[in-house]
Amino acid sequence: MNGFSFYICSMEKNFTYGQLQSFCAAVFIKMGCNEVDAVVAAKALVAADARGIDSHGVARLSGYVRLWEVKRVNAAPVVKLVHETLSTAVVDGDAGLGLVVAPYAMQVAIDKAKNAGTGWVSVKNSNHFGIAGYHAMMALPHDMIGIAMTNASALVAPTFSIERMLGTNPIAVAIPAGTEPAFVADFATTTAANGKLEILQRKNADTPLGWVQTKDGSSSTNANELKNGGSLLPLGSDREHSSHKGYALGAIVDIFSAVLSGANYGPWVPPFPAYVPMPENMPGEGIGHFFGAMRIDAFRTPGEFKANMDNWIKRFRSAKKMEGQAKVIIPGDPEREIEAERMKNGIPVLDVVVEDLKKLATKFSLSF
Amino acid sequence: MNGFSFYICSMEKNFTYGQLQSFCAAVFIKMGCNEVDAVVAAKALVAADARGIDSHGVARLSGYVRLWEVKRVNAAPVVKLVHETLSTAVVDGDAGLGLVVAPYAMQVAIDKAKNAGTGWVSVKNSNHFGIAGYHAMMALPHDMIGIAMTNASALVAPTFSIERMLGTNPIAVAIPAGTEPAFVADFATTTAANGKLEILQRKNADTPLGWVQTKDGSSSTNANELKNGGSLLPLGSDREHSSHKGYALGAIVDIFSAVLSGANYGPWVPPFPAYVPMPENMPGEGIGHFFGAMRIDAFRTPGEFKANMDNWIKRFRSAKKMEGQAKVIIPGDPEREIEAERMKNGIPVLDVVVEDLKKLATKFSLSF
Repeated sequence: MNGFSFYICSMEKNFTYGQLQSFCAAVFIKMGCNEVDAVVAAKALVAADARGIDSHGVARLSGYVRLWEVKRVNAAPVVKLVHETLSTAVVDGDAGLGLVVAPYAMQVAIDKAKNAGTGWVSVKNSNHFGIAGYHAMMALPHDMIGIAMTNASALVAPTFSIERMLGTNPIAVAIPAGTEPAFVADFATTTAANGKLEILQRKNADTPLGWVQTKDGSSSTNANELKNGGSLLPLGSDREHSSHKGYALGAIVDIFSAVLSGANYGPWVPPFPAYVPMPENMPGEGIGHFFGAMRIDAFRTPGEFKANMDNWIKRFRSAKKMEGQAKVIIPGDPEREIEAERMKNGIPVLDVVVEDLKKLATKFSLSF
Repeated sequence: MNGFSFYICSMEKNFTYGQLQSFCAAVFIKMGCNEVDAVVAAKALVAADARGIDSHGVARLSGYVRLWEVKRVNAAPVVKLVHETLSTAVVDGDAGLGLVVAPYAMQVAIDKAKNAGTGWVSVKNSNHFGIAGYHAMMALPHDMIGIAMTNASALVAPTFSIERMLGTNPIAVAIPAGTEPAFVADFATTTAANGKLEILQRKNADTPLGWVQTKDGSSSTNANELKNGGSLLPLGSDREHSSHKGYALGAIVDIFSAVLSGANYGPWVPPFPAYVPMPENMPGEGIGHFFGAMRIDAFRTPGEFKANMDNWIKRFRSAKKMEGQAKVIIPGDPEREIEAERMKNGIPVLDVVVEDLKKLATKFSLSF
């Protein structure tokens, strides 16, 4: 073992997926979730760790607990449809965990699609829902395309602005294939997700130019710039590189998730840290999400579609590579490969996160 | 008059919207379009000039004529629904002008939405459709959100690739408001649209870094790099600035437009210039589009939605500005302002385009 890997090993411990999922479910039950909801939420949360998006998984468990402690999360919500048509619905999450509300709403979209060809569900009065890709992928076993997006508290300045107006507002699209694995895109509508900044903060390293700006709108490479009043930048980084497109994408996610449903939008979206006060004069209820499901056979036979999707994937995978690059990636490849490896060899959890989970275990008289 | 504006004046002439629209309709009739289709196509085409997207308007009229001359455009198509459910349809464009097929398909989406809440239409066997925003905006008078996208011939290399695999694949989303003007986003999923390169080519100017790469994948500022085998870059420009997100967006547009419908996708999309040979082993028919319409009142009352949309727009318009910037822009602001100005004062057309239109007039015994 060389020094480097020793250093890494000393920073993290390995857990099985089952260990993490059971512990999260136990914590959610202690919060007052019923057993079904607790398992639904735990699966959604730990999917992030399994797929390598460590910032959105068990590292956030104590954050969800703190939101429950300050009564911003309702552990026993009555989630319900408040409006519907053949292909649409609005869901009121009753301030529940987004990890519970989102799978419910995505299932409504899937059920609508079974009847009407597609289903589209806008959600109000919810909370953070983990990774968007997990919810979008719920459509795949039904031979449907799945879409999931959410707004989030404001960290991003629109083009030409120095004010944080939008969240990192991710979009996920999952598309089934035949013999090839599914196409699964899942990305923040910013140049860099906040989780990437956190990794650099831990390493005490700089960001590339184009990820963040100072509170005055100047370029910055400081991974801690948000603590100084700076902002994340929309996908595109600056006007010359079309940051107005990333801003438009983040805005569309915000409007579909919140203006359509009656949730809060823009700078009024509730913050994740429980100690941050709520914005004043909030125009809606909670956080908003938006889900879609499109039945493949509402367009063409699944056989034809999947054969062409396989052809699409193979052709893109075999596109001419840049020198020095191993391969051209299909969206979803990296997360699927990490998931296969981690389900086999375990999920590494940073020591600082393990300590956090141990504190939760003590708080709730659980073992971890 | 100073030298600069004299120079500009000598490069272009002014026409009214009516002059350009009537001339285009007359050309389409000479090609064999019926009168209704000719007007539909002319309105869609000249909307680009009116809204300031000069690269996609009358400058392309002779290109459409050449596609008709080589029999890649059918001037008298029988456009038809080949599959449908309550909220979906597939349209076969019968190789018609995209300028005719797209408004037909968008109307199908709107009609589906009237019944099912939303309508989603994937289109095969079509051709270039002008600007995506024009079709998305068809939903606005119906109190619906409109969505339009299209694939296009391959000019864009995926992240880590040096091969042109995707078109500039634009996405447009039009969202109605109340007293505020509608939110209308319409953008290529690349850092720079091809039209921006054409402007720099005319000026003999360089591009910023991050718009194009050489055929070997090196950075370039050469506005003519595509002629040397180079590629446009996906929104994000490079991996460090999340070009994989622009690549994923372009891929989603390609799959929704073509794999869902049975059109050609990826590197097999037919080229716009009629002299460029068609790709070999094409897997589908023509170019593909995708349209969506979502009825506002399928989610919440239009009154509530529009009041919140007005609030959204006003809040973003009043976001703190960067020093030196006049305002924070709402998607659709620049195009709407140009349209108002050009409808009043006329549409400037470059001399080189005027010459092109005059040649068409001669060819078809029309006056211009």
